Amino acid sequence: MKRILTGDRPTGRLHLGHYVGSLKNRIRLQDEYEAFFIIADLHTLTTRPEKTGELKDSIHQLVLDYLSVGIDPAKCTIYIQSQIPEVAELAVILGNLVTVPRLEKMPTLKDVMRDAQIQTPSYGLLGYPVLQSADILMVKANLVPVGKDQASHIEVTREIAREFNRLYGEGLPAGRQVFPIPEALIPGDIGTLPGTDGKAKMSKSLGNVINLSDSKEEVKKKVMGMFTDPKRVHGDEPGEVEGNPVFVYLDAFAEHGDPKKIEDLKRRYREGTVGDVEVKEYLVEVLEKFLEPIRAIRAEFEKKPELIETILKEGTARARLEAQQTLDEVRRAMKIDYFSQ
Amino acid sequence: MKRILTGDRPTGRLHLGHYVGSLKNRIRLQDEYEAFFIIADLHTLTTRPEKTGELKDSIHQLVLDYLSVGIDPAKCTIYIQSQIPEVAELAVILGNLVTVPRLEKMPTLKDVMRDAQIQTPSYGLLGYPVLQSADILMVKANLVPVGKDQASHIEVTREIAREFNRLYGEGLPAGRQVFPIPEALIPGDIGTLPGTDGKAKMSKSLGNVINLSDSKEEVKKKVMGMFTDPKRVHGDEPGEVEGNPVFVYLDAFAEHGDPKKIEDLKRRYREGTVGDVEVKEYLVEVLEKFLEPIRAIRAEFEKKPELIETILKEGTARARLEAQQTLDEVRRAMKIDYFSQ
Repeated sequence: MKRILTGDRPTGRLHLGHYVGSLKNRIRLQDEYEAFFIIADLHTLTTRPEKTGELKDSIHQLVLDYLSVGIDPAKCTIYIQSQIPEVAELAVILGNLVTVPRLEKMPTLKDVMRDAQIQTPSYGLLGYPVLQSADILMVKANLVPVGKDQASHIEVTREIAREFNRLYGEGLPAGRQVFPIPEALIPGDIGTLPGTDGKAKMSKSLGNVINLSDSKEEVKKKVMGMFTDPKRVHGDEPGEVEGNPVFVYLDAFAEHGDPKKIEDLKRRYREGTVGDVEVKEYLVEVLEKFLEPIRAIRAEFEKKPELIETILKEGTARARLEAQQTLDEVRRAMKIDYFSQ
Repeated sequence: MKRILTGDRPTGRLHLGHYVGSLKNRIRLQDEYEAFFIIADLHTLTTRPEKTGELKDSIHQLVLDYLSVGIDPAKCTIYIQSQIPEVAELAVILGNLVTVPRLEKMPTLKDVMRDAQIQTPSYGLLGYPVLQSADILMVKANLVPVGKDQASHIEVTREIAREFNRLYGEGLPAGRQVFPIPEALIPGDIGTLPGTDGKAKMSKSLGNVINLSDSKEEVKKKVMGMFTDPKRVHGDEPGEVEGNPVFVYLDAFAEHGDPKKIEDLKRRYREGTVGDVEVKEYLVEVLEKFLEPIRAIRAEFEKKPELIETILKEGTARARLEAQQTLDEVRRAMKIDYFSQ
């Protein structure tokens, strides 16, 4: 059974964009693969080292989001990056196998700096792909589900893994190597959900999100205030359906609504025989069908904080066993396991 | 009792330059301070990641060199960097508190790249001062004996320590901070020993060293082939004493010879009434007075490899206790000690 690694930085509650872009996929992946879901708290230090006081609660909320959408700790391993010392050890070793210019050229570095309004990158931020490589190689993941923008990170991981195998693989039996070369898994049918303000991406920092944990009232308010077709002023004018956020959302969550009804709304919108309000009210209905059970499951788990802690402890212990085994192999291959030689 | 941290990268046998530049000082420091001597094997990866197969033996030889000159494991803690996972953990955290340009400006980076003939620095090489900061702060060293060229590294460590204390010190009682701000200890009277070829520095890579473990025959051969005053062709011409390696060595090891005799040789050299051979033969005699007991102690310890291993294991265990305690404090201050809150 192949292994996958994916996860999130604990920076706040998950929203519909996360669901469409990755969570939905993960629910499927946990059945098909040996799945490791990393809560990458060390990565948050690369852009916000001053915000560590919020991490504990963010992690708790993240696990609640996971469980509420159907990620199942019996099928996968949910673990906290910072509680696995071997991740840092491996990162320090792997950092010697990639050059500074290679990391400086990463397109993601500029993007992150722009988004987080960082003028000068920290050493840790430059090394983000190194730490991520350690995460991936530590559990010997074969596949890493990522968005297109992160595919360049997986390429760095592949280069580092190959270089490690080349430098330290000589003592191993022919054909065997310490690290499998991971592949990026970029699912073709997964789209990006636009923000409620019509911007290309739903993003907490843009304030255009609908969270999985939003109340019915919050969802209604956000949907009723959504951006639609800016060229259409009145409901009796023909409007654009393609790229119109309300219809993008209706399509993304169509399985929770009536496909015929959605098609009918689209037709009437194009003709100019339906107003925004009617479309939005139907979108609220569809989203509620989707969110209501999620909210109910979340409410159940919210009553059991000690269960969340147990899930995290057990997942972290399981991941750590893998990490220790990998690091033992790494040390042996490098011949720096001095005390056990 | 104040704490010091110093040490070596295990890259080969120690030579007279190491003795004059640091070992001699350490023998004194171990009496005056709580001394930690780090064997910085992870640092060797920054310039020679492909050479890890040699590390185990290099470490063994290094400890033999330490013991033979009088470094006493009963007075100090000798430990191996790579066997303390907390060092890597702390390095990954601290890397977020220093910028890339700050590290790129380090004068030592250019020097190391030139000496090791490295065209493009690895991420690990750029982060050398970060890993060194983790070494220093992990044991909460107050003083770090370094050569002048390394003083800039301690400055980075001080900046990182201050930034950590500022960001994460708020929960601590007034006046208390996680990290003491270390100071560089640059002993004024310690000089650099020139190479046997007259080059400014004795250095293994230049092939101009006399090792502490060289045999009597090797020492004799190296001294008799030493560079002296290049302007003097015959022994009956007046020669330069200042900067002349044979006299620099005689001065450096004067306590093992007869100061009057050394003064007499200098006078006759200036007058042109002594040949190189006579001076060199006396230098061999002086060096032998110094090296002979060192060689004898080394030979004793060479018979007991298991004792060397025990010294390393015990020192590493002792250092690790400190490291674990420091990392616990670090996690608590950062509020990332999730499972013990």
